[in-house]
Parts: sequence; structure tokens; C-alpha cells
Amino acid sequence: MGTVFCAGLGPGDPDLMSVRSHRMITGARHIAYFRKAGRKGQARAIVDGMLAEGVTEHAMEYPVTTEIHFSDPEYNRVLAAFYDQWADTLAEIAKDEDVVVLCEGDPFLYGSYMHLYTRLQGRAEQEIIPGITGMSGCWTASGQPITWGDDVLTVAMATLSEDELAKRAAETDALVVMKIGRNLPKLRRALERAGRADDAWLVERGTMPGQSVQKLSEIEGEVPYFSIVLVHGQGRRP
Amino acid sequence: MGTVFCAGLGPGDPDLMSVRSHRMITGARHIAYFRKAGRKGQARAIVDGMLAEGVTEHAMEYPVTTEIHFSDPEYNRVLAAFYDQWADTLAEIAKDEDVVVLCEGDPFLYGSYMHLYTRLQGRAEQEIIPGITGMSGCWTASGQPITWGDDVLTVAMATLSEDELAKRAAETDALVVMKIGRNLPKLRRALERAGRADDAWLVERGTMPGQSVQKLSEIEGEVPYFSIVLVHGQGRRP
Repeated sequence: MGTVFCAGLGPGDPDLMSVRSHRMITGARHIAYFRKAGRKGQARAIVDGMLAEGVTEHAMEYPVTTEIHFSDPEYNRVLAAFYDQWADTLAEIAKDEDVVVLCEGDPFLYGSYMHLYTRLQGRAEQEIIPGITGMSGCWTASGQPITWGDDVLTVAMATLSEDELAKRAAETDALVVMKIGRNLPKLRRALERAGRADDAWLVERGTMPGQSVQKLSEIEGEVPYFSIVLVHGQGRRP
Repeated sequence: MGTVFCAGLGPGDPDLMSVRSHRMITGARHIAYFRKAGRKGQARAIVDGMLAEGVTEHAMEYPVTTEIHFSDPEYNRVLAAFYDQWADTLAEIAKDEDVVVLCEGDPFLYGSYMHLYTRLQGRAEQEIIPGITGMSGCWTASGQPITWGDDVLTVAMATLSEDELAKRAAETDALVVMKIGRNLPKLRRALERAGRADDAWLVERGTMPGQSVQKLSEIEGEVPYFSIVLVHGQGRRP
């Protein structure tokens, strides 16, 4: 019997994956990773040059990413069928051999693997290897600690409503907002209402080549979906 | 000129530190770490067997931990002097050589190194190596993803008031509470008021020997200060 390993890759710099993920990936005979159809995929790019000769690669290509809104029942149906099918395939491989699924960041924090994890319960042995989160990579890149003393940290998605984002921003000490992209104008209005816009930073490609750390107030134009907005806590410090 | 490296160690299992931290630690000629006076120290224990021969160790022993409450001005004065003195020492070493400071978890998330980081600005080159957070280690150990879809995640310290904790627990999807210890009865009351007590888990020594994952409702007696309470989000999942 094999095991399905989900290897957290960390924030993007290959040097920031764990010793355990690194060992599992370099020794793997089967690796699998999610990607948008027609792209190389960020997870696969992180392990470039690390894979053993003769490894079998399983590219799990999303049937949909942002073409349909997640509130559309069709989005749910298509994605559920996709996860069902890949759970079957991984369970089949794990009858005989180990397989390592690559997961950006930390698998159990908003990761895609979770949808396979629930489907594989009772069908295959699984081991989750945690990773450094993308947000840790970004606040380290910002050069400022995110939380001090008894600061409250709130992590929220920019897909929430403007009212909800404004409330969250007003009521927390430190804030991390993910899934930015086209939600930036709404998020900016929410941060302004909460009086936090001047203290917000936008980090793109944290820990990777082309990393950028800018004050949100200096950003013009569009930003990627996977950029992160930070407001640092200012708590107790001796 | 040397550099002061702050190497995130991750949640406790040495296999979960980053490849970069591992390389810096095994190659270090000077290492430094915080610990309670008279103890070996958790950070030092994690790197047991990894250090190079002839390494110089600098044990930075807290002059106070919980003997004085942090609201007492004396607490602040004594700790500030301690950080001042160690910043001087590290700056002195870094005039000639590199020094690696060991930091459990992720240095910029409630880490002690931050107090040296601010004091060393402009006096020494510094590099922060992020780590897997203790909370990631704990939610991975719990066998359940912490957040799904657009869940809001709140990270709070159990040192907050009962009212504040109850409000935070009621208004979030996923919750992480740190610094438990003697705050457990208060935290338990707060979670009950918020209707979240039955869904809460307590994790001790996540990813380390002696790891324990229990429903909070089944806990009797005292728990360590560094245990973590989790309430998992239940957000959108195809």
C-alpha cells in the first residue's frame, strides 16, 4: 500500500520548503499538481530541477477558474466532478505506490488539496506536510513584523463584501487580505472607510523573483489575484 | 561585515524547518537562542545534533517570563534592558562574523526576535528566514483543514478579556487561540458564550513527540501556556 503525501511548498522560494517536503519531492516516483489549463503551473515551477529521473507527472488541470462565478451551481458541479475524478486516480496509484501532491503555501490553509483530502478519507493513507504560508512569505518580505504582544490578526478574502471588509479592517489590530485581483477597488474603499488605507501594503510574488512590496496608496492599475494586502499590528513592545 | 540571521525553526519537528534555515544552522559558527533561565530551551532542543563542531552558543536567558505581569512597568523596564544588551552583543559579533538566531515558529508572527530586529536596524545587516507557524503545525496535527473558501480566520491571544474573546469567537469562521495556560477557564467560558465550545480542539506539542489533539470539552485540569485552541472553519467546498 502506498501513501498520498501532500507536500506544502511554502511561499514560492524553493529554499523555503521544509526539509521533509524537499526529501519527499526529490525522491518521488509520482508527483501531481494543480494548474490552470495551458499553463505550466506555479507549484510545478517551484520544483523545477528537483525531480528524480523517470518521475511520472500528473497535471491536474482545473476545468474552470474564474470563468464562472463560484455562486453559480454549475461552478460547483464541474469542480466537484474534477475533484472526484482525481481522488479516484490518486487512490488507484496509492494501491501500489506513493504519490506526492505539490501544494503551494500551507495545504490546510485555503489549499486546493483539502478537496481531495476529504474524498480520499478511508480510501488511501494520507500525510499532510505543512508549509510556510504565502502570507508569512509576504510579511517577511515587507520587513515588518505582522503581530506584536496581544495583537489580534484577521485573515480575510477580498471576495467578501465592502461592508464586511470595512468592519473586519476596523475591528482588528493586524490584517491580511488575500485573493485581491479585481477586488482591489472594493478593498481600497473598505480600508479607507476603516481608516486603515494609509497603513496598508501590497505584496506581489513574495519571496520569488520579481517580488514587489509597495504602499497600497501608491498602487495604480491592476494587481494579480494572488497578491496579498497587509496592515501590520502595532501592539505591545518592550 | 557579518549578518544577523534569524532562522525560523517551524512548529517543533526538526524535519519541518526550511531547507534554508537548516543550511544556515548546520553551517553556523555562532548561534543564539532565547530560553527561560535554568532550562535547556525549546529552540535549542529542536537543533540538537545539527550544530557544527566548535560552534559558539549564546543563550539569551529571559530575566523574567510570567513572574511579573506585563502591565507592570517593571516588566517592561527589565525586558527592554535585556533586549538592549543582546542587541549590543549581536551587533558586536556581526562586525566580523555571521550569527544565527534560532526562533521557534515564524519570526515575524509574535516572535521574540522582533524586539532585537527593531534595535538592530541600522547597526547590522539582518535577514529573516520565515518558518512554518506553530498554529500550522497544530491544525495539520488536528487532521482537519482550518479554512475553506472565503472563511475569515481570527488569531487571538487567550490573555484578552473574556468579553473580547467571546466577541471574537462569535464573529469569525475559523479561530486560533494561543497563550492558553492559566487562561483556559476564561477562554472556555468565552467559547461557551459564543456557542463554539463544542467545536473547539486543544493541541499540545503539535508535530513533536508527545503530541496531543483533544476536544476541548474533554480537557480536565491544566494545560501548557504554549498549547493552542482551534475552531475549524466550515466554508464553501465543492
